[in-house]
Amino acid sequence: MVALPQTGMAQGADTTPLTEDIGFIFTTFMFLVSGFLVFFMAAGFAMLEAGLVRGKNVAMQLTKNVALFSLASLFYYVLGYNLMYPGDAWTVSNYLGAFAITGLEPVALEGAQPDLSYASLGSDFFFQLMFCAATASIVSGALAERIRLWPFLVFVVLLTAVIYPIQASWKWGGGFLDAMGFQDFAGSTVVHSVGGWAALTGAIILGPRLGKYRNGRVTPFPGSNLALATLGTFILWLGWFGFNGGSQLYMDTAGNVADISRIFSNTNIAAAAGVVVTLGLTQVLYGKPDLTMILNGALAGLVSITAEPLTPTLVEATFIGGLGGAIVVFAVPLLDRLKIDDVVGAIPVHLLAGIWGTMAVAITNEAATVTTQFYGIMIAGAFVCSTSALGWMALKRTVGLRVDEETEITGLDMAELGMEAYPEFNPG
Amino acid sequence: MVALPQTGMAQGADTTPLTEDIGFIFTTFMFLVSGFLVFFMAAGFAMLEAGLVRGKNVAMQLTKNVALFSLASLFYYVLGYNLMYPGDAWTVSNYLGAFAITGLEPVALEGAQPDLSYASLGSDFFFQLMFCAATASIVSGALAERIRLWPFLVFVVLLTAVIYPIQASWKWGGGFLDAMGFQDFAGSTVVHSVGGWAALTGAIILGPRLGKYRNGRVTPFPGSNLALATLGTFILWLGWFGFNGGSQLYMDTAGNVADISRIFSNTNIAAAAGVVVTLGLTQVLYGKPDLTMILNGALAGLVSITAEPLTPTLVEATFIGGLGGAIVVFAVPLLDRLKIDDVVGAIPVHLLAGIWGTMAVAITNEAATVTTQFYGIMIAGAFVCSTSALGWMALKRTVGLRVDEETEITGLDMAELGMEAYPEFNPG
Amino acid sequence: MVALPQTGMAQGADTTPLTEDIGFIFTTFMFLVSGFLVFFMAAGFAMLEAGLVRGKNVAMQLTKNVALFSLASLFYYVLGYNLMYPGDAWTVSNYLGAFAITGLEPVALEGAQPDLSYASLGSDFFFQLMFCAATASIVSGALAERIRLWPFLVFVVLLTAVIYPIQASWKWGGGFLDAMGFQDFAGSTVVHSVGGWAALTGAIILGPRLGKYRNGRVTPFPGSNLALATLGTFILWLGWFGFNGGSQLYMDTAGNVADISRIFSNTNIAAAAGVVVTLGLTQVLYGKPDLTMILNGALAGLVSITAEPLTPTLVEATFIGGLGGAIVVFAVPLLDRLKIDDVVGAIPVHLLAGIWGTMAVAITNEAATVTTQFYGIMIAGAFVCSTSALGWMALKRTVGLRVDEETEITGLDMAELGMEAYPEFNPG
Repeated sequence: MVALPQTGMAQGADTTPLTEDIGFIFTTFMFLVSGFLVFFMAAGFAMLEAGLVRGKNVAMQLTKNVALFSLASLFYYVLGYNLMYPGDAWTVSNYLGAFAITGLEPVALEGAQPDLSYASLGSDFFFQLMFCAATASIVSGALAERIRLWPFLVFVVLLTAVIYPIQASWKWGGGFLDAMGFQDFAGSTVVHSVGGWAALTGAIILGPRLGKYRNGRVTPFPGSNLALATLGTFILWLGWFGFNGGSQLYMDTAGNVADISRIFSNTNIAAAAGVVVTLGLTQVLYGKPDLTMILNGALAGLVSITAEPLTPTLVEATFIGGLGGAIVVFAVPLLDRLKIDDVVGAIPVHLLAGIWGTMAVAITNEAATVTTQFYGIMIAGAFVCSTSALGWMALKRTVGLRVDEETEITGLDMAELGMEAYPEFNPG
Repeated sequence: MVALPQTGMAQGADTTPLTEDIGFIFTTFMFLVSGFLVFFMAAGFAMLEAGLVRGKNVAMQLTKNVALFSLASLFYYVLGYNLMYPGDAWTVSNYLGAFAITGLEPVALEGAQPDLSYASLGSDFFFQLMFCAATASIVSGALAERIRLWPFLVFVVLLTAVIYPIQASWKWGGGFLDAMGFQDFAGSTVVHSVGGWAALTGAIILGPRLGKYRNGRVTPFPGSNLALATLGTFILWLGWFGFNGGSQLYMDTAGNVADISRIFSNTNIAAAAGVVVTLGLTQVLYGKPDLTMILNGALAGLVSITAEPLTPTLVEATFIGGLGGAIVVFAVPLLDRLKIDDVVGAIPVHLLAGIWGTMAVAITNEAATVTTQFYGIMIAGAFVCSTSALGWMALKRTVGLRVDEETEITGLDMAELGMEAYPEFNPG
Repeated sequence: MVALPQTGMAQGADTTPLTEDIGFIFTTFMFLVSGFLVFFMAAGFAMLEAGLVRGKNVAMQLTKNVALFSLASLFYYVLGYNLMYPGDAWTVSNYLGAFAITGLEPVALEGAQPDLSYASLGSDFFFQLMFCAATASIVSGALAERIRLWPFLVFVVLLTAVIYPIQASWKWGGGFLDAMGFQDFAGSTVVHSVGGWAALTGAIILGPRLGKYRNGRVTPFPGSNLALATLGTFILWLGWFGFNGGSQLYMDTAGNVADISRIFSNTNIAAAAGVVVTLGLTQVLYGKPDLTMILNGALAGLVSITAEPLTPTLVEATFIGGLGGAIVVFAVPLLDRLKIDDVVGAIPVHLLAGIWGTMAVAITNEAATVTTQFYGIMIAGAFVCSTSALGWMALKRTVGLRVDEETEITGLDMAELGMEAYPEFNPG
């Protein structure tokens, strides 16, 4: 016997969903579950970055991560989402009309005649927002330990309200890259290399941390908390199942849910391959495995499979993710030689593995051609680099981007926030 | 070709669910997913509180959090759930018959004739339990660093077995507050302000930590690990999607799942607004952003939207959450002026933002009136304050509530547990 | 009005799922959700173990955990999954044909004639993989702080590619233990005691840490970060809802989803009982609650209920979990008397509580007999102990298992990895 509790919260219910509702419920719920997984990536980025900066900058890095996610939540809503999905046909003129603020469906869909062939607008908005926020998270890690809080946050607004949505509309908003046949299933380019380009531009304009490159030598600045960095990596790995799986966009047929299963399996094995390759390579090259590199290897494997997590076989996904890991091992010292100071390795992981992953689509998906993939990467890169550079330069010339030397030496935490993340642990 | 693995665990299956089962499966699974999200809030509270206490009290705070969740799990089952949902009509006499121990449905529903219009009793119990446990978590943070373990745990039993369920029955058990039209969708009052009142009563009876208020000055005791506190906040934010989303109580129609989507979007933006407002206000008021305040701003935004996460538009949700954040900024110093020592800020976040959120229902939901909302808040407050005060005073007069001075100075970890959370990090 | 965004990622959709698809979608999605929860247990084990080792070995413990999960992901795919599910009838000859690499269903199930009565192969593979990886995680904790990285990883490959899958096939692959009526719903034996036996064998062959047992006295080596250990425990607890709930294997009827709800409720209360019993017992026996013991009490409660989380009532589940907690309190000092050095308590938690849980099935499930349960435990134990011992001894005789004394004293982090997990916190 089932005693049904009184609830008082009840919104009214039917015993049996109408047949036409079922696919809508499946897909919408899939977006909500995927969306909360991708939301949790904000925590993953925060922990990864807090673990990889020095103790004196941890509170600031945490502040930046909480703030950037929140600003992305507001500005993607006010402007970004509308720029990204301007209508059926993408034209410049659509931008002008895009400032209408998104309204979700009415409560209980009352008075609406929803198209039940997809998912609720609210779930789609929630899911897409998380992608936009992830893009901004990529930037914060690379520029850590020397960028000022407020100019960084102004850039986050520019990125999440304008730069990300415009380029994302070219592919996911049904724009010209989509029309050309450019393939990017869950965003190796649209999210990861875009975040990576913005980070690269920022890292160059901002310059390296004091003392990083001195007398032709690279001084390593070890992360203050590798347990936190490892936790962050695992959280990101978890969130990626929502990131890639949710990008299937439908869960209303056996074929769609089987595809999501393929995507989960491929995503996992690509990350695993990234780990195994970086583990082996750092052992061989340096004689010792490098945990930071291994964590970035997992992430590079994930980024690499993101452009096409569906069509590869498990063998192909292993290869794609493994090569992503190898890219990290070789790119990190290369960036150091170029004196581009990327605190957490975001540029190898998100930009370079993102490019590799986008190109690799051509291996397993016959809808993609090497030329179109390359063209899409370059277009997105050119747009993001130029707009980001404008943004960074404007901030640098006006309010200034970088903390002063004394602040950087003391640490941003005490100087800019007046608090420390670990007041009892840090000597001095 | 699909090779189906042998499983050995199989419970028997049908190819196609019976039509009348589908809504039941959707809603039940939604409760299970929401329930595990709210479960994870126990980890969120534990990390938040462990991060905000001083290093010498971290192990104790962790112990309290693990223990309180476990006691809540047992006592809500033995007594609380039955008190909360005493039957269709709420009457005093029902309390007397409420000591029957909840039995879940039989395995495979065999022999049961379940009402398939809602969800399984097991999933409802699981979901509701997590709300009860959350209420107790609110208390532990406020009273940290000076309350003794066992008296605190006795209070947790009182709160989760009796106080919480009785007042919750008034609204969610179909009691008199529900009949009056009091609105509290997911518990700004029923969970958060109730936890807050219990914490406030306890904080007053217990008194402030040694040295907190000395010679008319407030001494800040910085949290020992802001990375942990930030992680805890993100975990709570994640869990809140289950907290508010699951409170829709049904996912068996397109309208219900679209409503859950609205709730996810509103919940997220209210938290984001809480962050942005506290970030801005602390910058303006103190010249420096305050990370601890920002984390509490996120939580206050979440608490504020909890009484009505469905009816607001995104603009309204932004306003409701943002005002919740502002409350934190102004209430924290106010409590200090009153010499009420709330270690983690639980009273501003859960009590004050909970009151605000409950009143704010009247803005967006025409079923709510300012009078009824205020009346419900006051009734719940009067009941919880009086019963909590009785509990706290009885404990104080008999076994004593507070550790002795030496223990408080040494830290509860070494004195009461004989261990430290970070034995290698803490100097001395 | 619902404005449907253009997506560009769309894979094609139907408004209404075909009736025969619905059960398949429910069960497959349930596996994916359960699977990502069990995935997250990898993070839980990593945090638990990193928190319980000394600061000088944290980075190594993190490296081992990331690496073992990744190796398990690769080798369970290449070999293990095929060994575990060799076909409808389990025979030795099937092993020979088992090296074919698992192929998932084709994209969109095109050209396949899938059996829609269960779930997608991809989701089943993803879910089962996580169980295999969990088995390896159990071993890493017990042998921490003195085993060398690479020999440990070689053993992981042996365990996940061969030992685990072969014994798992006896029950879950439809093998002879299954035919005999041996009951193990979610793996108290198949996963937990198996991991525990491999850990026990390794701990004996490897020997205790330097200085652990000296002059007949046991020196406690306190964990370096109990906040991390507590977080790990909560994550494992969360993951266990997927571990046990997903093992229902079907979510296509009201009966199945109600059973999953029972499982969630029983799993939670068993963990809670483990906590309450260890809290009480350590208070009574030692005069002080022991947080590490309490965390292991939660895990022992979870392991105990894993062999049969469905049939017990909530009262029975409380008893089963509580007794699991008691086992931890008595077994930890017993192992120390035997000079078996188990760093994190994996042997009491996974082996002993796993045995108890497997025997306890006979209390609540009439399909189980004490004799068959005992026989199954012994068979699995004998197989795993002998094959593990062979593996450990072969590694010991060839490459060596243990770091040298100087490395062990310095810490594995600096000596083997050249980095520290907390370079700024650890004095010296």
